[in-house]
Amino acid sequence: MKSHTEYLWFQTKKSREFVNITDKAEEALVKSRIKEGMMLVSAMHITAGVYVNDAEDGLIQDIEEWLGRLAPEGVDYRHHRTGETNGDAHLKNLLIGHQVILPITQGKLDLGPWQHSTTPNSTAGDASASS
Amino acid sequence: MKSHTEYLWFQTKKSREFVNITDKAEEALVKSRIKEGMMLVSAMHITAGVYVNDAEDGLIQDIEEWLGRLAPEGVDYRHHRTGETNGDAHLKNLLIGHQVILPITQGKLDLGPWQHSTTPNSTAGDASASS
Amino acid sequence: MKSHTEYLWFQTKKSREFVNITDKAEEALVKSRIKEGMMLVSAMHITAGVYVNDAEDGLIQDIEEWLGRLAPEGVDYRHHRTGETNGDAHLKNLLIGHQVILPITQGKLDLGPWQHSTTPNSTAGDASASS
Repeated sequence: MKSHTEYLWFQTKKSREFVNITDKAEEALVKSRIKEGMMLVSAMHITAGVYVNDAEDGLIQDIEEWLGRLAPEGVDYRHHRTGETNGDAHLKNLLIGHQVILPITQGKLDLGPWQHSTTPNSTAGDASASS
Repeated sequence: MKSHTEYLWFQTKKSREFVNITDKAEEALVKSRIKEGMMLVSAMHITAGVYVNDAEDGLIQDIEEWLGRLAPEGVDYRHHRTGETNGDAHLKNLLIGHQVILPITQGKLDLGPWQHSTTPNSTAGDASASS
Repeated sequence: MKSHTEYLWFQTKKSREFVNITDKAEEALVKSRIKEGMMLVSAMHITAGVYVNDAEDGLIQDIEEWLGRLAPEGVDYRHHRTGETNGDAHLKNLLIGHQVILPITQGKLDLGPWQHSTTPNSTAGDASASS
């Protein structure tokens, strides 16, 4: 079986940020020369999430607010007794999930039209939120 | 590596519907002739979800109500400024997830008893909610 | 393609319990002799979840409380008309997800530092909650 692994690093500036990484997934696919199979995109940090959805800016703000409602900051989480302050980000990770599989068909990421729009700089809804 | 891809289309009548697609997954497995591996069942629409659970009718209603509580309709989502009205369905997609992996062992979907009940027309809990 | 399947059984004492199963995943990996690929860790029960996160005790309590807020017990779920009393556990399963993929690179589980800490008995955040 052909396999290919890449480690991507992201340096975010804010405590929570959405990064569209579809182009990077496509670059990795080209390098892998894999034509049929599955690409696992998996965060290695326990406060980062990965999802596939529309990369529309308003929606991204909606998602951030929604995550804040369901897994709020500013709560006195037990996890904070360790000195950490990121309990909410652990819960957001669990809510969104930390990985997706991108199907590969005939050498391309096999995504739906709104999972991978044709607008430059908005080519997909893959995003990674880190905190 | 053996691989097999199928595209399934569903025409739903209501804005939100649960469709049991386990039989279709099994049909695809037979066609694929794959004996050991993983089947990715992944929605290509950003407002559809895929999950594995009990196909019991009451539970399905519970799930629909629960999704409505955690990702409500009728909110003035920023995404709606684009003219869309489906902000809640994007969030429901993120909550449920848009894909599952079905393990394949000895040529069969390797599901637990309640992930794949023996009742006709209720053979599994895979469902797709679209909006 | 090389493949390997194992069925793990867990007998929990309480209605809800967190079990760190990373060591068992590593044992299965060694037996499989697989060097590159993906390990699917998938619950076969519809009220069990599987996730990857920090195995810190306080966080685990936070997660349990959080699950209780978003998918509460003691609600008169429609599913209970079947005689079941575990409607909340079905919803918790959907919220957390019932499966993860662990990447395998050079014969090891390719996890981040907090997905797999070096503390004995706390080697990872994989957990299974059953009810």
